[in-house]
Amino acid sequence: MRIGVLTGGGDCPGLNAVIRAVVRKGVSLYGHEFVGFRDGWRGPLEGDTMPLDIQAVRGILPRGGTILGSSRTNPIKIDGGVEKIKDNLAETGVDALIAIGGEDTLGVAKQLFDKGVKVVGVPKTIDNDLSATDYTFGFDTAVNIATEAIDRLHTTAESHHRALICEVMGRHAGWIALHAGMAGGANVILIPEKPFDIDRVCAYVESRFTTRYAPIVVVAEGAHPIEGQMALQAGELDSFGHVRLGGIGELLAKEIEKRTGKEARTTVLGHIQRGGTPTAFDRVLATRFGLHAIDAVHDGHFGVMVALQGTDVVRVALAEATKELKTVPVSRYEEAEVFFG
Amino acid sequence: MRIGVLTGGGDCPGLNAVIRAVVRKGVSLYGHEFVGFRDGWRGPLEGDTMPLDIQAVRGILPRGGTILGSSRTNPIKIDGGVEKIKDNLAETGVDALIAIGGEDTLGVAKQLFDKGVKVVGVPKTIDNDLSATDYTFGFDTAVNIATEAIDRLHTTAESHHRALICEVMGRHAGWIALHAGMAGGANVILIPEKPFDIDRVCAYVESRFTTRYAPIVVVAEGAHPIEGQMALQAGELDSFGHVRLGGIGELLAKEIEKRTGKEARTTVLGHIQRGGTPTAFDRVLATRFGLHAIDAVHDGHFGVMVALQGTDVVRVALAEATKELKTVPVSRYEEAEVFFG
Amino acid sequence: MRIGVLTGGGDCPGLNAVIRAVVRKGVSLYGHEFVGFRDGWRGPLEGDTMPLDIQAVRGILPRGGTILGSSRTNPIKIDGGVEKIKDNLAETGVDALIAIGGEDTLGVAKQLFDKGVKVVGVPKTIDNDLSATDYTFGFDTAVNIATEAIDRLHTTAESHHRALICEVMGRHAGWIALHAGMAGGANVILIPEKPFDIDRVCAYVESRFTTRYAPIVVVAEGAHPIEGQMALQAGELDSFGHVRLGGIGELLAKEIEKRTGKEARTTVLGHIQRGGTPTAFDRVLATRFGLHAIDAVHDGHFGVMVALQGTDVVRVALAEATKELKTVPVSRYEEAEVFFG
Amino acid sequence: MRIGVLTGGGDCPGLNAVIRAVVRKGVSLYGHEFVGFRDGWRGPLEGDTMPLDIQAVRGILPRGGTILGSSRTNPIKIDGGVEKIKDNLAETGVDALIAIGGEDTLGVAKQLFDKGVKVVGVPKTIDNDLSATDYTFGFDTAVNIATEAIDRLHTTAESHHRALICEVMGRHAGWIALHAGMAGGANVILIPEKPFDIDRVCAYVESRFTTRYAPIVVVAEGAHPIEGQMALQAGELDSFGHVRLGGIGELLAKEIEKRTGKEARTTVLGHIQRGGTPTAFDRVLATRFGLHAIDAVHDGHFGVMVALQGTDVVRVALAEATKELKTVPVSRYEEAEVFFG
Repeated sequence: MRIGVLTGGGDCPGLNAVIRAVVRKGVSLYGHEFVGFRDGWRGPLEGDTMPLDIQAVRGILPRGGTILGSSRTNPIKIDGGVEKIKDNLAETGVDALIAIGGEDTLGVAKQLFDKGVKVVGVPKTIDNDLSATDYTFGFDTAVNIATEAIDRLHTTAESHHRALICEVMGRHAGWIALHAGMAGGANVILIPEKPFDIDRVCAYVESRFTTRYAPIVVVAEGAHPIEGQMALQAGELDSFGHVRLGGIGELLAKEIEKRTGKEARTTVLGHIQRGGTPTAFDRVLATRFGLHAIDAVHDGHFGVMVALQGTDVVRVALAEATKELKTVPVSRYEEAEVFFG
Repeated sequence: MRIGVLTGGGDCPGLNAVIRAVVRKGVSLYGHEFVGFRDGWRGPLEGDTMPLDIQAVRGILPRGGTILGSSRTNPIKIDGGVEKIKDNLAETGVDALIAIGGEDTLGVAKQLFDKGVKVVGVPKTIDNDLSATDYTFGFDTAVNIATEAIDRLHTTAESHHRALICEVMGRHAGWIALHAGMAGGANVILIPEKPFDIDRVCAYVESRFTTRYAPIVVVAEGAHPIEGQMALQAGELDSFGHVRLGGIGELLAKEIEKRTGKEARTTVLGHIQRGGTPTAFDRVLATRFGLHAIDAVHDGHFGVMVALQGTDVVRVALAEATKELKTVPVSRYEEAEVFFG
Repeated sequence: MRIGVLTGGGDCPGLNAVIRAVVRKGVSLYGHEFVGFRDGWRGPLEGDTMPLDIQAVRGILPRGGTILGSSRTNPIKIDGGVEKIKDNLAETGVDALIAIGGEDTLGVAKQLFDKGVKVVGVPKTIDNDLSATDYTFGFDTAVNIATEAIDRLHTTAESHHRALICEVMGRHAGWIALHAGMAGGANVILIPEKPFDIDRVCAYVESRFTTRYAPIVVVAEGAHPIEGQMALQAGELDSFGHVRLGGIGELLAKEIEKRTGKEARTTVLGHIQRGGTPTAFDRVLATRFGLHAIDAVHDGHFGVMVALQGTDVVRVALAEATKELKTVPVSRYEEAEVFFG
Repeated sequence: MRIGVLTGGGDCPGLNAVIRAVVRKGVSLYGHEFVGFRDGWRGPLEGDTMPLDIQAVRGILPRGGTILGSSRTNPIKIDGGVEKIKDNLAETGVDALIAIGGEDTLGVAKQLFDKGVKVVGVPKTIDNDLSATDYTFGFDTAVNIATEAIDRLHTTAESHHRALICEVMGRHAGWIALHAGMAGGANVILIPEKPFDIDRVCAYVESRFTTRYAPIVVVAEGAHPIEGQMALQAGELDSFGHVRLGGIGELLAKEIEKRTGKEARTTVLGHIQRGGTPTAFDRVLATRFGLHAIDAVHDGHFGVMVALQGTDVVRVALAEATKELKTVPVSRYEEAEVFFG
């Protein structure tokens, strides 16, 4: 069998670990052959391939990013895109496809599967917001990077009697903020799932100034105030009406300074959350996902995605997998609220 | 309510996070009072207590070890030990106990519960070998430390054309070796659950010397050869007939040198695996365990232990929890074997 | 002798290590007594003190920040400030002062010394821009944090074919940018000492897109284009006419996108560069500075600052120490330029 | 010009950074050509070469080890070795040699230079014991790894009321022990330069048990007791009469247990101190050494070694460089002694 592999969407620590596991097991155990498609769906769309053998995957386990490159190209939005992909797969002699990516990438995978392409998905979202799997790789790495940053901010906040705001990733789901905030001992955590009350946030911040511990606010990039508070202006919103990227942290700092009279500073972690070497947890999870994905291909079980449930890696239908976003449930947020203030 | 807290057995990153969560939620949400018992079961046995209030738990979340101290004192093996504990709890006005520890500590907790003491357990084992919970805190930290060490050994092994053996914790269960070995790209992983064939190990090692990648053998301290191989001598065994601690790594190095004619060196990670700041995963897990333990106490639900199942923290009977050791199943070891050689 | 200690200016990993060394040696070897002044010069100005004995400094060696707190209060700019300090020192029975801080703090120390106060300085600047010492503590920690961030950005840049800009500290001196950029394998480094040519920067960036390595631009916050290029607008400048903090990185991204047609993203490291546990280098340097500062006090050698020259800690006159800013010399920048493009 | 490069002796973080800098500057600025010799002096001895161009050095800056491989082959001890090397250099058209290594490697370099070979040396010793340079790369990385390990040991020592011994590298010079011990807050540091008094060591250890802080002993592998104490047996000594590698730590633990009646445990850091990614300090130092080495070659200035003096990289005669071992001076050890006990 000749199997194509591609990685789509934002990069994520663990992508290379998946690719390596797929190829190592596929070649040595099953005797399959592999071809890499470059830059997500752009690869099969344009027939842009690269060799993908044992040699190509040597030493990539601890490396962040993806040796295959990535892009946000969406063949479904391109006229005749799906047909072109089917033609190119036929032309390059590719029998089946392993697509590693998030909601968008897997959505395309599902549509290709519906049109007869043999495809297996591997979930990838640094935000951990895919509903069919307990965890996705990359998330643990991002949480650790954010936690280490919050650890560092504590000493500055204490020494200077300042409020420090740490903006982390999470446009629609607050998982990174929740976990990093809990791990870092934040005194307030703000997530997209629950519009925040700026009055309460300021009350928390002020209560910290009365102890020797200074306030650390961890805010997901997609968090926003309850309607009517902190009236936002045109320039502060993006085309979706959301606070623009890197915006909510700075807005919060200004508002806290205005209302409490204390200094407030923001750090936007940005891209460093998604790069670099994966944690052990993510390397193991990504490796296991790769091993199980190639098993599914070998078994001829297509239209599925691998997923973690408890400690088991299982297969779920792609249709299920991309149905809904996994957001932070109220119960998990309430756990964290115990430490607010 | 006045609640006693103790930590028993070997130390483990995350113990302080549990203590903090218990006290923070217990005081601020439920209005309980706390008292710390020093050094595991020695504390209630001798009535040795310390204050445990909000102030005592400030800043301890990121710290390894335990502010309560620990010991391996087992009151059940002491004549009249259980009665003494009951008396001391009565005398210090302690209504309920939260016991944080491993198999031994929880075993004592169970027996005390059977004799009428109100106790809730929190599982702690760096080896991840408790059957009722998917993971225990401390394990992820240990795996990351071991993985980082293995990452470092790779460059030395490659530069010097040597076999490097990394001995990690795991007397009866090979979880740390399995995960760290998988994450670190080991070319052989040896665990207590499966006696190893020294001929195959040497074959793997030799095959690596033919590529530019040098062999890394990850071995759990409790791993041992299949019977008859590598005849062990009296001085190399401990009182249980096991290879003595820090022993199997060095024995392997000698045997590999003898059989392959190549240099082999051993690193025994030892105590650095169980100390220092916990990873974000362990801080979150330990914090959640603490929150749910105090909930159980508050609910008057005793004789239980908190446990992780999937992403949920649940309660399981102490009797269940300590029934059997959770060892590495064959299927998980086979996943790893794909990368051997 | 009764000795006061204070820390002024921005916080910096290693401050606590200095305080600990001063107190440990002062108490155990010389039998001196100590008193801490809170929040830099605000402490002696307002007579705000805290106890500073062996117990107070236990366990602080690895902690970032400063247990004494800090501020930017400048008594010289306050009417009668110097007199008030002299009065408060007399009142609290303080015979001599150890002032740990940067240019401003040491400038005040010098003026107090000129007016008869017995003072010894310890240099502290995370930017490494004090001329009398080879290195200051905190710098190595900041460089390592920035380097780790750059390491992480590489994988994202490669996977997405994007230019990534990393803005680091350095208002007037480019030391952090130079060292972190060199250590992180940046393909352009921009420092305040040398106005940059945006055309060349874009040429470097574009040349990287032709290889499989993506461009990483490391820019000090105080870097700026040669006059006439990238015409800056009012809102983009601060009251000194400099590009506002966190501004140059984003301006560069916009300009690079406009000129090259490629995506560019900025990460502003901000406060995480100055918080958290110090590196071993900084702990050793800070500890040695503390030991030598108390020696100077004990010797009655005032009006001096401790400094690193080669591997020796020496004493230099405060007047010398604060005379001029140590900026990156041309020769050091040329070393780095070899790797540009 | 065609220039050969080799790396000899034990591996050391930063070797790849040197190689990269040499090649990048040599090719792009001077237009030289390079050839790599494999495995130290074995390469030129056997004419074993590998290509060494810009492509070969891409991405190696952050990697530990050496892409050229290493060995302890000493051509001087091989009959006709020097002649063979001269012949092979001539045959491969190599005009000059850059030899990166420690005392042994540079000693060979010196002898080759005396016999007419054009050679420039780059010092490498993880132990920091070369007299002509303030620091060598690799040392800072080793010290940071050891410090992080000591940080971790603290929490275990405190929680269990145990003495923990950490054995670090340093056969003849105690620099790693001194710096890591100082940075890690050890309560005793034992180095080869000063035979230790076991009675005093035990007194220090016991004094710690009276506080809530437990003792951490940092011991260089080459440390030994004053004569007559701790009578060593045949099996505990190596062929030089030194305590065998990994031996002194365990001997100390036994002796401390015997004399104090307290538990003591040893961790031998071993090879993890010399592997893996270099710190920023080591990357910058190694890079600068590489840049200056190729400058020396380009200038036709042979028989020299690059060295760090203060913040400058200078050239010193190979004859000077290898003359004597740089051991820890009494004054530096006395600084550390302030914190003992």
